[in-house]
Amino acid sequence: MMKVAIIGYGVVGSGVYDILKENRGGIEKRCGESVAVKYVLDIRDFPDHPEREIFVKDFDKILSDPEVGVVVETMGGVRFAYDYTKSALSAGKTVVTSNKELVALHGHEFFRLAEENGCRYLFEASVGGGIPVIRPLARCLAANEIDSITGIINGTTNFILTKMYEEEQSFEDALLQAQRLGYAEKDPSADVDGLDVCRKIAILASMVLGKRVGCGDIPTCGIRGVTDDDMKWAESAGCAIKLLGRAVFRNGRAGVSVEPAMVHKTNPLANIGDVYNGILVEGNMVGHVMFYGRGAGKLPTASAVVADIVDAVRQPGYCGEFSWTDAGDTAFDPAELESEFFVRMCEGSIAAAEKAFAVQDKFYARHDGDIGFITEMMSKNEVNKLLSGIDGVKSVMRLFR
Amino acid sequence: MMKVAIIGYGVVGSGVYDILKENRGGIEKRCGESVAVKYVLDIRDFPDHPEREIFVKDFDKILSDPEVGVVVETMGGVRFAYDYTKSALSAGKTVVTSNKELVALHGHEFFRLAEENGCRYLFEASVGGGIPVIRPLARCLAANEIDSITGIINGTTNFILTKMYEEEQSFEDALLQAQRLGYAEKDPSADVDGLDVCRKIAILASMVLGKRVGCGDIPTCGIRGVTDDDMKWAESAGCAIKLLGRAVFRNGRAGVSVEPAMVHKTNPLANIGDVYNGILVEGNMVGHVMFYGRGAGKLPTASAVVADIVDAVRQPGYCGEFSWTDAGDTAFDPAELESEFFVRMCEGSIAAAEKAFAVQDKFYARHDGDIGFITEMMSKNEVNKLLSGIDGVKSVMRLFR
Repeated sequence: MMKVAIIGYGVVGSGVYDILKENRGGIEKRCGESVAVKYVLDIRDFPDHPEREIFVKDFDKILSDPEVGVVVETMGGVRFAYDYTKSALSAGKTVVTSNKELVALHGHEFFRLAEENGCRYLFEASVGGGIPVIRPLARCLAANEIDSITGIINGTTNFILTKMYEEEQSFEDALLQAQRLGYAEKDPSADVDGLDVCRKIAILASMVLGKRVGCGDIPTCGIRGVTDDDMKWAESAGCAIKLLGRAVFRNGRAGVSVEPAMVHKTNPLANIGDVYNGILVEGNMVGHVMFYGRGAGKLPTASAVVADIVDAVRQPGYCGEFSWTDAGDTAFDPAELESEFFVRMCEGSIAAAEKAFAVQDKFYARHDGDIGFITEMMSKNEVNKLLSGIDGVKSVMRLFR
Repeated sequence: MMKVAIIGYGVVGSGVYDILKENRGGIEKRCGESVAVKYVLDIRDFPDHPEREIFVKDFDKILSDPEVGVVVETMGGVRFAYDYTKSALSAGKTVVTSNKELVALHGHEFFRLAEENGCRYLFEASVGGGIPVIRPLARCLAANEIDSITGIINGTTNFILTKMYEEEQSFEDALLQAQRLGYAEKDPSADVDGLDVCRKIAILASMVLGKRVGCGDIPTCGIRGVTDDDMKWAESAGCAIKLLGRAVFRNGRAGVSVEPAMVHKTNPLANIGDVYNGILVEGNMVGHVMFYGRGAGKLPTASAVVADIVDAVRQPGYCGEFSWTDAGDTAFDPAELESEFFVRMCEGSIAAAEKAFAVQDKFYARHDGDIGFITEMMSKNEVNKLLSGIDGVKSVMRLFR
């Protein structure tokens, strides 16, 4: 029997507990042995919990118990989670986490510790909630070199953008609704300003490279600047606006960015609405594959944690393919990457725009005193250069088909 | 170094050879050892092949070579493939296949042989081409009990239905175009009549149950009966028409069907066009997740075969979670399953229809002398009973949101 300790009995931690109870039979079958929660660590008291005797407040109790093989870290934050994770791995206990901040910041240290101590550090739940993405990337697409990953990986902002697009709500109203529904925090900045997406795409990029891509190397722009006008123009160009985390891999380096972009309706990411996530992976042999589902929520996220627990029971030794090292220069500037761009500006600049851009074969429209058009494939640096002499530019967004 | 033999150097087999060359470095890294093709068996000659010396015509040469650890069966058909697979597994060699017919018919025998001989029988490429679906089902959703699988798992028919829907082509014209583009065989019946989907959904259902679901237990209807009128009505009801393989799991049994159905635009399967496949899996904890990509083609399918080779090198011993046994009564009648239905009939039957069905709150329209409406949730048996006394019924299709 495998004994597990859950540290942090919040939304995800309690979901892990529930799934290990509820689906016990199937999990035992798939593990080849039963899995039981021996301890739950939380600073709060749960006097009415049916198993209140397993709740502890002292991490050393978990650390010193040789029966505990897997520690589930669902407490979030960095400070305590860092110490506990380090101690557990140093003691040879596998750690399974949903803590994307910790994985993005310190994953490389933990993988080394896991290797040294013959255990594992697993993080499927840190990206895409319940959607299998870490394991498929590492295992199922093993025949491929990964060319790019483009993801809608934040449910809160996707909900807000969907409401703005489909119901013509303002950003402020859509955010309020997301907060009322519990999708957005009181302080929504980690979601709305793109930090959450930044951490997640950093994790995916690091795993593909096998080398750490730091969040500091990722230009990050959230959705506060997306306006009702942007939405209307996107619609008229046959696009949706999505907040994309994107990593393009070239010669052992990654160009990674977080920004709102136009996504043409023919791209499967354009149809991903509400709080759903979608991760589009481009392999050099398989072409495009996409993984879709609920990117957050108690049971979906806990489902990914429990899949990691099952994996850890079946294969307790260190597995290098789910890891990266801290290896210096791994990022290139994503502004070098080519795409089409959607440009909107005052109608008065029409002559200057026509001089700078070859727009005749692409979408081109006038509306409410503005003109909007789609450029040829070019880099962000090029589009900025072409626009540098032109007045009245209102919006420039990458466009993906 | 792992030595591989490829039997059948057609589209997929040659793709496997190409990927093992092209992505050699990454594959070696992920396997922990290099992988080389030692033999290719084919009845044809390839005198201009750069490695013509590795081509053989005698399977015994492969069988008796103790260096060969993995046999890739990409020959298709049943007769020879069955014998070769049996011999290879009996000799303790892992077999990796893309042959859905063989997996659906004889998988259970091969898993037993693999277990007895300490090797594996792997079949990721048999369903969904390059889309990871077998391994995610077995491994990544291990925390879940699977409630249902609904898939667009035949690219040819999805191409035809997309052309009929988007370009208002007739079935015949769309089929001709599919044949011209190489998506459909000269004799298209395995695709068009649903047999290919039947085999694939049988494989998925069998793996989830751990018990064989035979194709004989799966009511199978293809797309020959889908008309231009059906397409127009679907569009007006906010739906697309898709050929769905569907398995619903209840109490250790599966209700499995293959039939064209209306899929509402809010369902992610509705947006999967062209030759793409999508497999929507419903887990009791994760909710809905979908896997999307190219369901066929040389390199995508070969990509899945090579992922299995990598898996086999890393984990050569038998793994029970990718298997099923031949276990008698595993299927229930999918006609028992409830859904909405879209019903179309002559306008003259309007009074009878209104008497039989409560249609007031749902879609309800008249058009070209027909009426069309969406029923409440009910079983196919119920809808048939309600329709039994009514004349002029033109079309009855399940509708999924």
